[in-house]
Amino acid sequence: KGIYVKDISALHNAIKNAKPGDEIVMANGDWNDVEIRFVGYGTEEQPITLKAETAGEVLIKGKSDLKLGGEYLIVNGLHFNTGYSPSSAVIEFATSRDTVANHSRVTHCVLKGFNKPQRNQTDLWVLFKGRHNELDHCYIAGKSNRGPTVRVDLEGNRNIKNYHKITNNHFGPRPPKGGPSAETIQIGNSYTSMAPSYTLVANNFFERCNGEVEVISSKTNFNEFRNNVFYKSEGSLVTRHGNYCTVDGNYFIGDENSEQIGGIRLIGTGHWVTNNYFYNLKGSIFRSPLAVMNGIPKSPLNRYIQVTDVVVAYNSWINCDAPLQFGVGSNIDQKEVLPASEIRSERPIRTLVANNLVYNDTGDAHPIVAHDSLDGITFKSNVIDNQGVSFPYESAFEQKDFSLSELDENLFIPTEGLPDVALYQGFEFDQITEDLFGNSRKGKNQVGAVAGKPERKPELMDLSKYGPDWYSLISQEKMPAQKHSVGSAAELETAVREAQSGDTILLTIDRYALETPLKIDKKLSIYSKGEKKATITYNGPSKTPLFEMNPKGELVLESVILEGNSENYAFASLEENMSSLYNLEVTNAEITSFDYVLKGYKHSFSEYNQFKATLIKDCNNGIELAAEDDDKGDYNAENLLVTDCRFENVSRNVIDYYRGGYDESTVGGNLVVTNSSFINCGAQEEDGILINTYGIINVAISGNTFKNNQVKMVARLWGAKNNSHSDNVIENSGDLVVEQNLPLKLMY
Amino acid sequence: KGIYVKDISALHNAIKNAKPGDEIVMANGDWNDVEIRFVGYGTEEQPITLKAETAGEVLIKGKSDLKLGGEYLIVNGLHFNTGYSPSSAVIEFATSRDTVANHSRVTHCVLKGFNKPQRNQTDLWVLFKGRHNELDHCYIAGKSNRGPTVRVDLEGNRNIKNYHKITNNHFGPRPPKGGPSAETIQIGNSYTSMAPSYTLVANNFFERCNGEVEVISSKTNFNEFRNNVFYKSEGSLVTRHGNYCTVDGNYFIGDENSEQIGGIRLIGTGHWVTNNYFYNLKGSIFRSPLAVMNGIPKSPLNRYIQVTDVVVAYNSWINCDAPLQFGVGSNIDQKEVLPASEIRSERPIRTLVANNLVYNDTGDAHPIVAHDSLDGITFKSNVIDNQGVSFPYESAFEQKDFSLSELDENLFIPTEGLPDVALYQGFEFDQITEDLFGNSRKGKNQVGAVAGKPERKPELMDLSKYGPDWYSLISQEKMPAQKHSVGSAAELETAVREAQSGDTILLTIDRYALETPLKIDKKLSIYSKGEKKATITYNGPSKTPLFEMNPKGELVLESVILEGNSENYAFASLEENMSSLYNLEVTNAEITSFDYVLKGYKHSFSEYNQFKATLIKDCNNGIELAAEDDDKGDYNAENLLVTDCRFENVSRNVIDYYRGGYDESTVGGNLVVTNSSFINCGAQEEDGILINTYGIINVAISGNTFKNNQVKMVARLWGAKNNSHSDNVIENSGDLVVEQNLPLKLMY
Ligand SMILES: [Ca+2]
Ligand SMILES: [Ca+2]
Repeated sequence: KGIYVKDISALHNAIKNAKPGDEIVMANGDWNDVEIRFVGYGTEEQPITLKAETAGEVLIKGKSDLKLGGEYLIVNGLHFNTGYSPSSAVIEFATSRDTVANHSRVTHCVLKGFNKPQRNQTDLWVLFKGRHNELDHCYIAGKSNRGPTVRVDLEGNRNIKNYHKITNNHFGPRPPKGGPSAETIQIGNSYTSMAPSYTLVANNFFERCNGEVEVISSKTNFNEFRNNVFYKSEGSLVTRHGNYCTVDGNYFIGDENSEQIGGIRLIGTGHWVTNNYFYNLKGSIFRSPLAVMNGIPKSPLNRYIQVTDVVVAYNSWINCDAPLQFGVGSNIDQKEVLPASEIRSERPIRTLVANNLVYNDTGDAHPIVAHDSLDGITFKSNVIDNQGVSFPYESAFEQKDFSLSELDENLFIPTEGLPDVALYQGFEFDQITEDLFGNSRKGKNQVGAVAGKPERKPELMDLSKYGPDWYSLISQEKMPAQKHSVGSAAELETAVREAQSGDTILLTIDRYALETPLKIDKKLSIYSKGEKKATITYNGPSKTPLFEMNPKGELVLESVILEGNSENYAFASLEENMSSLYNLEVTNAEITSFDYVLKGYKHSFSEYNQFKATLIKDCNNGIELAAEDDDKGDYNAENLLVTDCRFENVSRNVIDYYRGGYDESTVGGNLVVTNSSFINCGAQEEDGILINTYGIINVAISGNTFKNNQVKMVARLWGAKNNSHSDNVIENSGDLVVEQNLPLKLMY
Repeated sequence: KGIYVKDISALHNAIKNAKPGDEIVMANGDWNDVEIRFVGYGTEEQPITLKAETAGEVLIKGKSDLKLGGEYLIVNGLHFNTGYSPSSAVIEFATSRDTVANHSRVTHCVLKGFNKPQRNQTDLWVLFKGRHNELDHCYIAGKSNRGPTVRVDLEGNRNIKNYHKITNNHFGPRPPKGGPSAETIQIGNSYTSMAPSYTLVANNFFERCNGEVEVISSKTNFNEFRNNVFYKSEGSLVTRHGNYCTVDGNYFIGDENSEQIGGIRLIGTGHWVTNNYFYNLKGSIFRSPLAVMNGIPKSPLNRYIQVTDVVVAYNSWINCDAPLQFGVGSNIDQKEVLPASEIRSERPIRTLVANNLVYNDTGDAHPIVAHDSLDGITFKSNVIDNQGVSFPYESAFEQKDFSLSELDENLFIPTEGLPDVALYQGFEFDQITEDLFGNSRKGKNQVGAVAGKPERKPELMDLSKYGPDWYSLISQEKMPAQKHSVGSAAELETAVREAQSGDTILLTIDRYALETPLKIDKKLSIYSKGEKKATITYNGPSKTPLFEMNPKGELVLESVILEGNSENYAFASLEENMSSLYNLEVTNAEITSFDYVLKGYKHSFSEYNQFKATLIKDCNNGIELAAEDDDKGDYNAENLLVTDCRFENVSRNVIDYYRGGYDESTVGGNLVVTNSSFINCGAQEEDGILINTYGIINVAISGNTFKNNQVKMVARLWGAKNNSHSDNVIENSGDLVVEQNLPLKLMY
């Protein structure tokens, strides 16, 4: 017991000799480039443990990973920190196809920002194989490269009926990836969607898990999702493939300001959705609080199985917009453009919606949205307080007048006036014995997720309940931000290099002449101190940027004039190794004489690019975010906002924003161009389109002036998606065209 | 207890008042046109029983059915006899969608020939719904209309995880239907193929269950097939949809003379095939003893899921032809003619074949057949005695020399020289603890289904072990056949009407002049007594047949001359209500001056139509078996054999034999035309084809002479199927064409 090891060879030696009951203790400090292979055979009573000398003070760094194989192994207290896996997973419950781990556990560990150098390089952070393994009390955040954060694999009989448990973890923020394959948890895949899985995901906190449309993608059978908190996570819990899953007692907490935060999206057969609490969710259609999808007739394995035999009972929706949506994804109107095997024409059948509760502070005109007929859905004993506002399908929910009170942060329960509605006794409803809080429903049963006021608050927002006990997010806080005044080009360069993330740099003289790029790899604000804008001239080599946007670079630039030499760039991402996203906010600036204003290279990604009240003039190219040309659904920026700007004499790629590959479930790409003018642009535009938005889902072009632009089209919008235009003045600039359906490559 | 009832209203009254433990006794005798609704709520200790006064002497007749609803019900000793269901099932474990039966049992009953009037009218004989129901010790035989004999339904959550038991039944002969939907047992369907079923089919005897290619079609998950005997049944046990089924300890007994008798055909994931015994099977490809299929990439729900994670262990193949076939159904070569979604290009993967045994009295050149690459299959510790004959993929099976002895009828086990091969220990092989006979493998484990000689014989062919104890097949035997000499037309008519099935009628005078059809509804032989052929002239109305083939009519006609009036028919089925098949054998006859020689109407079906050494002359039409024009895979005859015949001056439809609708798994339609001549025929043939065989799978045209037939083609054969021609002499009769791929309608 207590075998103390200081390096990887001692560690592997200890592992080799470990007997049931042994505890191997890794010395505190940095462990660089370690590929830990933890193979051993413990017993239920006497597992073999690998633990940190002090929990959290063993730092795994560099090209490192951990693979487990054998029986009854425990890993405790490791901190994966600034590095990445040299293999396809950081932590894997297998060392080879045949040597999987069983009955093993990774607990009280941290994985943070352990990203592959580039977002297209795929890995998993935790890969489950074998059976009866656990991931619990871990903090896992910041994955930005391709691949789910946690995946359960079921290929091979060793990996089915796995009964894995993923519990009490804190899944911290995962930034949007800009394309698919960025789930927080994925259980199986379409090729194993027939496998019995029995994975349990319970009591976890999912905080802003924004990687893609699916926070959890359940793709196998008999999985259970219980008592998790989904906090402002821009995605949904989706039963994507597989059937007979249980979604019980979860909290879905939204935000007025985000339409991206979803709830539960259902595909397939036999799921039970009970005792869930939905609050303040504003997502719609695919991201509705409850999205029950349409299926494809005789669906291919990797598409949409019809919803049948689903039960939705005893859930509460509080102040959500249009919370219950059925037939989501119905696209019969696309028959002409999509192959028959893509037409979701099969509406939900044999589906029961009973004993649910909806409450709206302000009446909702559409609490139930039917994208197809509701004739396959039976509504029983559902209650709504819609403030008297009537709505379609009113027979589905009985209007009642009751009131709520706040039990806890983000948690409202009915306290007064909830009528004693006769509950519907569906098949096996006798097995729904507890409510959202795990309290017995007996004797006080009622509609909705909560049966009576509980004795104790659930304290769902108490973050100390989730993740490792040794790891406090509060301790991670940054030093207070500082301001740096710079009076020369050299001072500016030094300040950019040495400032702390969050600092501000003030430009105090009129002109700074730079010859080399400024590397932006942290959060920085740069602006002119006085009323007059300072000028930065950049004479660096051709194709180099004045501002080189690095991973995690966040630049706010205000009241500055940028001048190039017509061969170099104002802003660009790195050409490679963009392991994380960058953000850019430019206000009240003038940008002239560059080859490119902004160039986003392939595999780079920005969450926000904003240009406001800025003049862009005499450049060869404008803003180009169109390097993801694989047509696999990836794209270079989540948001591009152009407001109150003036583009003058920009020869091509004035705005070029591209997303290729048809994937109807993604909502990504947001372009707003408003109150701006475009004059004498596009002279050398090869595509003939001034603002090229091919494949971008959300486009709003309004209040702009287009004058004397030498193009065929100002823009070609995608009518079937959320593309719109209004109040534009177009003069000698071609047309603004809307096409209902654009031809797109299918991704799968 | 013991509530005695004599009619249906008393029965329903007794049911209404039944309490747990009650026994309702149906009086012996005929119960005509009774729709029994047995709804009640018994308990495990005190079920409610419905039983015959004397088992087997309660005869259910007419338009009758039995539906059960409730809990713990037992039905015992009924005999369903000469009638048919007015509903979609004869026995159903439900009375409505919501009122299903649970924990209920139908035992010691007989269902025989309880067919709907016409084969296209669909029903089930036993329809399972609910959970935990049983069908045991029943004798069920002779279904000839459309629909599986027994089906388990899983639509709706009440019907999943059903744990039904189908045990100890005797499934007697089911004749070929001539098209799909004639399984003996079907469990679920493609739309419920994701549902957990857990149906057990055990200890049954399947005797000549020849309805279609699937004797059992398993279409849901976790079903078990144990210790059944498949005796000369022309079809296979197929895991058609659904996954993770167990096929353990079954006997598959074949026949040298039939290539239709199959074994196990596998589609999908996770099936375990263990301890099975295959004897004397001659089926190939889809009907091989073991057919492991290729799948379709991302298969639609109703097509072919790839085989993955399948285990085939401890099975024995004794004197089977090419017993192990992999990649069955591979049709990459049909890419040009079939849609991509029909191309089975995905070969089996992660599949293990271990500890199996093959024995061949005569060496087999191809004990393993690879229709695609075997690279996804692992072979371990398999043994073959192939009499030293080498074969492809020889590394998969080790050649050893050992000998067998006959333990029991149709049952051979290795007794001498079986080497002590090191058994392969696959994942979870420790759970294969017993052999074919249920004896422990411990201490005497070896390859193959049998681990050591058992103390007792299994007596699998002892039919008294299956079906009701009161029902003996021997008692069903017929009276001895008689001969009737007929000296006038009237005597002939009387003899045909009054003869017993199996009797013979001798024509003693030269000429019989008939004005009305002879109804053939039993087995009859008719022939001329002397050397000289008697003549039957038929002057009945136009479009009526001299011989009206009724359900179960079997006519053997020899040495007779038939003469019509050019407007009537020699032979025809009934126009409707062909509830069962007919057979026809014509030898040494002359058939002249009819409108049709043979006309098979829609929904009629014949297993054998044979014309031998017969002259067919001066008829408007010849043999037409082409009335199934729905293109759903149905056809009018299983076999049409024309040998040593002469067709002269037959204007059209000389031979017209049709099957429409593409269904690659069916082998049906067999045409042999040999050693015959066709002279001056086809003058009015609209299709331009003399012998029209569109869609027929097996066609052999050989040794014939075609002379002066006014057609474009003698025949157009289907190259991709088993169509062949040889040694024909063709003169002034168009071409005999072979097309590799005929355009066909997809059926699904
Ligand atoms: Ca996804
Ligand atoms: Ca079938």
